[in-house]
Amino acid sequence: MFDLILQDTGSRARRGRITTRRGVIETPVFMPVGTQATVKTASPRELRELRAQIILGNSYHLFVRPGLEVLRRLGGLHRFMAWNGPILTDSGGFQVFSLTRLRKITEEGVHFQSHIDGAPCFIGPETAMEIQSALGSDIAMVFDECPPYPCERDAAAASLERTLRWARRCKDWNDRQEARPLLFGIVQGSTFADLRRAGAEALAAMDFDGYAVGGVSVGEPEAEMLRAVENSEPWLPARKPRYAMGLGTPPQLVEMIARGVDMFDCVLPTRLARNGTAFTERGTINLKNSPFAADPGPIEEGCACPACAEFSRGYLRHLIKAEEILGLRLVTLHNLHFYLNLTARIRAALEAGTFGAFRAQFVANYKAREAGAGL
Amino acid sequence: MFDLILQDTGSRARRGRITTRRGVIETPVFMPVGTQATVKTASPRELRELRAQIILGNSYHLFVRPGLEVLRRLGGLHRFMAWNGPILTDSGGFQVFSLTRLRKITEEGVHFQSHIDGAPCFIGPETAMEIQSALGSDIAMVFDECPPYPCERDAAAASLERTLRWARRCKDWNDRQEARPLLFGIVQGSTFADLRRAGAEALAAMDFDGYAVGGVSVGEPEAEMLRAVENSEPWLPARKPRYAMGLGTPPQLVEMIARGVDMFDCVLPTRLARNGTAFTERGTINLKNSPFAADPGPIEEGCACPACAEFSRGYLRHLIKAEEILGLRLVTLHNLHFYLNLTARIRAALEAGTFGAFRAQFVANYKAREAGAGL
Repeated sequence: MFDLILQDTGSRARRGRITTRRGVIETPVFMPVGTQATVKTASPRELRELRAQIILGNSYHLFVRPGLEVLRRLGGLHRFMAWNGPILTDSGGFQVFSLTRLRKITEEGVHFQSHIDGAPCFIGPETAMEIQSALGSDIAMVFDECPPYPCERDAAAASLERTLRWARRCKDWNDRQEARPLLFGIVQGSTFADLRRAGAEALAAMDFDGYAVGGVSVGEPEAEMLRAVENSEPWLPARKPRYAMGLGTPPQLVEMIARGVDMFDCVLPTRLARNGTAFTERGTINLKNSPFAADPGPIEEGCACPACAEFSRGYLRHLIKAEEILGLRLVTLHNLHFYLNLTARIRAALEAGTFGAFRAQFVANYKAREAGAGL
Repeated sequence: MFDLILQDTGSRARRGRITTRRGVIETPVFMPVGTQATVKTASPRELRELRAQIILGNSYHLFVRPGLEVLRRLGGLHRFMAWNGPILTDSGGFQVFSLTRLRKITEEGVHFQSHIDGAPCFIGPETAMEIQSALGSDIAMVFDECPPYPCERDAAAASLERTLRWARRCKDWNDRQEARPLLFGIVQGSTFADLRRAGAEALAAMDFDGYAVGGVSVGEPEAEMLRAVENSEPWLPARKPRYAMGLGTPPQLVEMIARGVDMFDCVLPTRLARNGTAFTERGTINLKNSPFAADPGPIEEGCACPACAEFSRGYLRHLIKAEEILGLRLVTLHNLHFYLNLTARIRAALEAGTFGAFRAQFVANYKAREAGAGL
C-alpha cells in the first residue's frame, strides 16, 4: 500500500505514494483537520478545489456528537460529510487525555466524561477500532495513551508499555475484520530516546501499515519535538509511511520531511485563520493590523488561492474586523492552500532533486514569528 | 431604464426588466442583503451560482466601517467585495433612525453616534448621495426619515414633508453628476392612506427612476404592511419599478407582487439561517430539532440548492448543534436559493399567465409559521 518512489540523497526526505481503498495519496502530504465532520469553515468542494488528498476525522469528537448511531444511520463519515476521498481518523486517545474530565485509566481503557454534557463514556482499544469502523475510516489509528509534557521517565515507560499492549489489541481487532482500513501504530515514549526506540521497534515488529510519532505538540519546545521524530524514525521500516501527529509550522513541516516524515495534520492553518492570521512565504501576518486597512494587494503576491485571486488585504481586514464569516472562510482557504501547496512544492522539489536547496531557502525566508503556542 | 414587459390580468403583478449600468435585472426580483460588503456567510461566486441578479449594500454600515476613505482607495464597493453585478445601496436613513444613539434631527440632516464606537457622525441628503457615489452604487436611494410604528398623524405628516424636501435635495445632487446612478424615491406616510398618497404623488412629480415603499417592517402587523403598499402603489407611475423595502416572508412577497411590487430585499433568509431555520414550500423548519438528527433527506426534496444537492438534514443539524460555520453557510445558501427561486418561478408564472393559480397554491401550501418577529 506504500510505494517508496524516491529517497532524497541529501536528507532523509522521501517521495512516496499511499494507496487506500478510496484513492491514492502522494506524499509528503498535508492532511486538513475535520474534527467535527467538517474542515472548519470549508466545504468539501472547496477542499477538492484546493487539491486536498485526504482529510482527518476525529473519533472522540464524533463519538460524543453526533454519536455512532447517527453516523451509522447516515451511512458513515464519508457520506455524512459528502467527502468521497480518503479519511484518516484519529483514535480518540489524544482527546481523551487532553479534553475530558474525571478520567480513570485502566488496562481495559479510559473512563471519562464527555466534554459536551458530562455524560460518562468509555473508550478502549476495541471501542476505538469499532468507532473508526463505524466512521468508515480509510486509515485508522491505534488507541494510545498520550503522556503530558514534561513526564517522568518511569511514568513514560509505563505509559509506553500500555500503549504497546493497546496497539496489539487494536491490530488483533482489525485483523479480524473483512473490509479493514489501513492501521497505523503510534510511537510514544515522551522525551526519552531509548523509550522512543523501544516503542518504534516493538510497533515495527507488529507490522502496521504505517507509523505515527505521537506525544508531540503537547507543549514541548520545538527542539524536543524534532528530537522525538529523530529518536523514532530510524527504527521504523523504510517501506512504510511515517506520520507526525498534530504538527506543525511550515518550517517545522519542511524540517520533519527532511527527517523522513511523510504525513502531517495540523490545526494551525484553520485555527489561526479564525484569528485573522495568514501564512506567507515570509511568516505569518495578522490581517487585523491597521496598516492593511487600505491595502489593495492580496495576502501574498502570486498566490493561486481563491482569497488572493479576488480579494484585497483591505477587504479581508474589514471582514475580520466586522466579524463576517466570509473573512474566516477566505483566510482559511488561503492558509490551507499554503500548507497544501507547500507539500506539493516539496514533492516537486524531491522529484527534481532540489529539495536541499528548497529547504534552505524556504526556512531562511520564513521569518520565524512563531505561529502557535509552544511551537 | 424600466421595460414593463407584461401586466398580469388577474392582479396588479408585473413582469419587467430594469437596465442598470452594470447589467439587466429581470423583475420581480429578490435582492440578497450585503449590509457590511458581504451577503452574510456567502461568497460572490456562490451568489452568482445562485443567480442573484443584484445585491444590496448599506451606506450607513459602510460609512462607519470601513469608512469612505478606505472604500475610495480600494476602488469602490464592487471591487472591494468582488461583485461585478448591480448593487442597490440603501441611503442610511433607516439605520440612522433604528441603530444609532443621541441623534439630533435638523432640516440639514441627522447628527448621531456611530453604533460601533460612539463617534459623532452626520448624514444628510447630500452626504447620503456622496456616500452612495463613493460606493459606486448602481441604484441609489434618497435619504429619508423613517418614523416609528405606531406614529401620530401630525408627526407622520411633518416627517413626510421633510422626507420629500430631502428627496428633492437628493435628486438635485444626483442630477448634477456626470455618471449618475439610478435614483429611487421612498414613499413614507406611516399608516395614513392620504399621507401615503400625497407622498407617492409628490415623488412621482419629481420623476425618480423608481419608487420604494418605506417605513414598513418597523414592527407593524402584516395587515398594516400590506396596506402601506396598497395605499402607495396606485399613485406611482406604472412604467417605473416599485420596491418594498426590507420585506418579507415568502407569502408576503407573493402578495406584494400581486399588489404591483417589483423588487424586494429581506434579511430573513440569511438571518434565520444562522438560527438553523430553513425555508420550505410548507413553511420554515428548525434544523436544530431532534427529529432531524438521523434524517437522511435533504432540507427539501427536489430542491436544486447546493445544500440539498449533497447534504442531509441530519448532517446540517449536527453542524448547527456543533456551531460549525459550514452549517450556517449551507442553510444560508438554501434560504437564498428559496427566495431567488421563488421570484424566478413567479416570473415564469407571469409569462405563462398562471400567476393567479401559483399565488393561490403557494400561499395555501406555505403554513404560516411566521418566520420573523412582527411579520
